[in-house]
Amino acid sequence: MKTYDVEVRVWLKPSVFDPQGHAVEQALHTLGFEGTSEVRVGKYMHLSIGAADESAARKAVEEMCERVLSNPVMETYAYELKETVR
Amino acid sequence: MKTYDVEVRVWLKPSVFDPQGHAVEQALHTLGFEGTSEVRVGKYMHLSIGAADESAARKAVEEMCERVLSNPVMETYAYELKETVR
Repeated sequence: MKTYDVEVRVWLKPSVFDPQGHAVEQALHTLGFEGTSEVRVGKYMHLSIGAADESAARKAVEEMCERVLSNPVMETYAYELKETVR
Repeated sequence: MKTYDVEVRVWLKPSVFDPQGHAVEQALHTLGFEGTSEVRVGKYMHLSIGAADESAARKAVEEMCERVLSNPVMETYAYELKETVR
Protein backbone atom coordinates (compact mmCIF):
# COMPACT_ATOMS: atom_id res chain seq x y z
CA MET A 1 0.00 0.00 0.00
CA LYS A 2 1.39 3.35 -1.08
CA THR A 3 0.19 6.83 -0.23
CA TYR A 4 -0.37 9.54 -2.81
CA ASP A 5 -0.79 13.30 -2.47
CA VAL A 6 -3.55 14.54 -4.71
CA GLU A 7 -4.41 18.10 -5.72
CA VAL A 8 -7.77 18.58 -7.40
CA ARG A 9 -9.01 21.74 -9.09
CA VAL A 10 -12.66 22.14 -9.99
CA TRP A 11 -14.10 25.06 -11.94
CA LEU A 12 -17.29 26.00 -13.76
CA LYS A 13 -17.39 25.24 -17.47
CA PRO A 14 -16.76 28.31 -19.63
CA SER A 15 -20.41 28.40 -20.75
CA VAL A 16 -21.70 28.62 -17.17
CA PHE A 17 -22.02 32.08 -15.59
CA ASP A 18 -19.80 32.43 -12.52
CA PRO A 19 -21.36 34.98 -10.13
CA GLN A 20 -18.57 34.56 -7.56
CA GLY A 21 -15.92 35.26 -10.18
CA HIS A 22 -17.90 38.29 -11.32
CA ALA A 23 -18.08 39.62 -7.75
CA VAL A 24 -14.35 39.13 -7.22
CA GLU A 25 -13.62 40.92 -10.50
CA GLN A 26 -15.77 43.88 -9.43
CA ALA A 27 -13.99 43.99 -6.06
CA LEU A 28 -10.59 43.96 -7.78
CA HIS A 29 -11.60 46.83 -10.07
CA THR A 30 -12.95 48.84 -7.13
CA LEU A 31 -9.66 48.38 -5.31
CA GLY A 32 -7.68 49.67 -8.27
CA PHE A 33 -6.69 46.43 -10.02
CA GLU A 34 -8.17 47.66 -13.30
CA GLY A 35 -6.19 45.34 -15.54
CA THR A 36 -7.90 42.15 -14.41
CA SER A 37 -10.52 40.27 -16.42
CA GLU A 38 -12.02 36.82 -16.90
CA VAL A 39 -11.98 36.06 -13.19
CA ARG A 40 -13.34 32.59 -12.44
CA VAL A 41 -13.55 31.10 -8.97
CA GLY A 42 -13.45 27.37 -8.38
CA LYS A 43 -12.42 24.89 -5.72
CA TYR A 44 -9.00 23.59 -4.84
CA MET A 45 -8.75 20.39 -2.84
CA HIS A 46 -5.85 18.51 -1.37
CA LEU A 47 -6.11 14.95 -0.08
CA SER A 48 -4.09 11.85 0.66
CA ILE A 49 -5.12 8.50 -0.69
CA GLY A 50 -3.81 5.02 -0.01
CA ALA A 51 -3.75 2.65 -2.98
CA ALA A 52 -1.90 -0.40 -4.25
CA ASP A 53 -0.28 1.51 -7.12
CA GLU A 54 -0.53 4.73 -9.11
CA SER A 55 -3.07 3.41 -11.58
CA ALA A 56 -5.42 2.31 -8.77
CA ALA A 57 -4.99 5.71 -7.11
CA ARG A 58 -5.80 7.54 -10.36
CA LYS A 59 -8.88 5.40 -10.90
CA ALA A 60 -10.16 6.17 -7.39
CA VAL A 61 -9.45 9.90 -7.73
CA GLU A 62 -11.29 10.10 -11.07
CA GLU A 63 -14.30 8.32 -9.61
CA MET A 64 -14.26 10.67 -6.60
CA CYS A 65 -14.06 13.72 -8.87
CA GLU A 66 -17.00 12.51 -10.95
CA ARG A 67 -19.18 11.49 -8.02
CA VAL A 68 -18.35 13.81 -5.14
CA LEU A 69 -15.84 16.55 -5.75
CA SER A 70 -17.36 18.04 -8.89
CA ASN A 71 -20.70 18.34 -10.60
CA PRO A 72 -19.91 17.07 -14.11
CA VAL A 73 -22.94 18.85 -15.58
CA MET A 74 -21.59 22.30 -14.78
CA GLU A 75 -17.99 21.80 -13.77
CA THR A 76 -14.69 20.59 -15.13
CA TYR A 77 -11.89 19.15 -13.02
CA ALA A 78 -8.18 18.44 -13.26
CA TYR A 79 -5.86 16.79 -10.79
CA GLU A 80 -2.22 16.11 -10.07
CA LEU A 81 -1.12 13.04 -8.16
CA LYS A 82 2.26 12.11 -6.78
CA GLU A 83 3.54 9.54 -4.35
CA THR A 84 3.94 10.90 -0.83
CA VAL A 85 7.57 11.25 0.21
CA ARG A 86 8.02 10.49 3.90
CA MET B 1 1.09 45.94 -22.53
CA LYS B 2 1.13 42.15 -22.23
CA THR B 3 -1.55 39.83 -20.93
CA TYR B 4 -0.88 37.09 -18.41
CA ASP B 5 -2.93 34.06 -17.37
CA VAL B 6 -2.87 33.61 -13.64
CA GLU B 7 -3.94 30.63 -11.54
CA VAL B 8 -4.23 31.24 -7.82
CA ARG B 9 -4.75 28.61 -5.14
CA VAL B 10 -5.76 29.62 -1.64
CA TRP B 11 -6.06 27.21 1.28
CA LEU B 12 -6.38 27.33 5.05
CA LYS B 13 -3.13 27.15 7.00
CA PRO B 14 -2.45 23.68 8.43
CA SER B 15 -3.14 24.87 11.98
CA VAL B 16 -6.65 26.09 11.09
CA PHE B 17 -9.51 23.59 11.30
CA ASP B 18 -11.18 23.08 7.92
CA PRO B 19 -14.84 22.07 8.43
CA GLN B 20 -15.52 21.86 4.69
CA GLY B 21 -12.58 19.50 4.19
CA HIS B 22 -13.80 17.43 7.14
CA ALA B 23 -17.30 17.20 5.62
CA VAL B 24 -15.92 16.15 2.23
CA GLU B 25 -13.76 13.51 3.90
CA GLN B 26 -16.79 12.08 5.73
CA ALA B 27 -18.76 12.03 2.45
CA LEU B 28 -15.93 10.20 0.68
CA HIS B 29 -15.75 7.60 3.46
CA THR B 30 -19.53 7.11 3.39
CA LEU B 31 -19.37 6.52 -0.36
CA GLY B 32 -16.72 3.87 0.00
CA PHE B 33 -13.53 5.86 -0.59
CA GLU B 34 -12.05 4.63 2.68
CA GLY B 35 -8.44 5.28 1.80
CA THR B 36 -8.71 9.07 1.78
CA SER B 37 -7.42 11.33 4.53
CA GLU B 38 -6.19 14.87 5.17
CA VAL B 39 -8.84 16.39 2.90
CA ARG B 40 -8.53 20.19 2.74
CA VAL B 41 -10.76 22.40 0.64
CA GLY B 42 -9.61 25.76 -0.65
CA LYS B 43 -10.24 28.12 -3.55
CA TYR B 44 -8.92 28.01 -7.06
CA MET B 45 -9.06 31.18 -9.14
CA HIS B 46 -8.19 31.93 -12.70
CA LEU B 47 -7.82 35.45 -14.05
CA SER B 48 -6.22 37.47 -16.83
CA ILE B 49 -4.15 40.52 -16.05
CA GLY B 50 -2.65 43.15 -18.29
CA ALA B 51 0.75 44.50 -17.24
CA ALA B 52 3.85 46.06 -18.75
CA ASP B 53 6.01 43.02 -18.00
CA GLU B 54 6.10 39.84 -15.94
CA SER B 55 7.58 41.48 -12.86
CA ALA B 56 4.79 44.12 -12.80
CA ALA B 57 2.20 41.36 -13.25
CA ARG B 58 3.68 39.33 -10.37
CA LYS B 59 3.71 42.39 -8.13
CA ALA B 60 0.03 43.10 -8.87
CA VAL B 61 -0.98 39.46 -8.35
CA GLU B 62 0.82 39.27 -5.01
CA GLU B 63 -0.87 42.46 -3.83
CA MET B 64 -4.25 41.10 -4.97
CA CYS B 65 -3.66 37.83 -3.14
CA GLU B 66 -2.73 39.63 0.05
CA ARG B 67 -5.57 42.16 -0.06
CA VAL B 68 -8.50 40.46 -1.78
CA LEU B 69 -8.11 36.85 -2.77
CA SER B 70 -6.88 35.44 0.52
CA ASN B 71 -7.09 36.20 4.21
CA PRO B 72 -3.40 36.13 5.21
CA VAL B 73 -4.26 35.53 8.87
CA MET B 74 -5.82 32.14 8.18
CA GLU B 75 -4.88 31.27 4.63
CA THR B 76 -1.85 30.60 2.45
CA TYR B 77 -1.73 31.16 -1.29
CA ALA B 78 0.33 30.15 -4.28
CA TYR B 79 0.05 31.20 -7.90
CA GLU B 80 1.31 30.40 -11.37
CA LEU B 81 1.57 33.08 -14.03
CA LYS B 82 2.31 32.78 -17.71
CA GLU B 83 2.02 35.06 -20.69
CA THR B 84 -1.20 34.54 -22.64
CA VAL B 85 -0.64 32.93 -26.02
CA ARG B 86 -3.08 34.27 -28.61
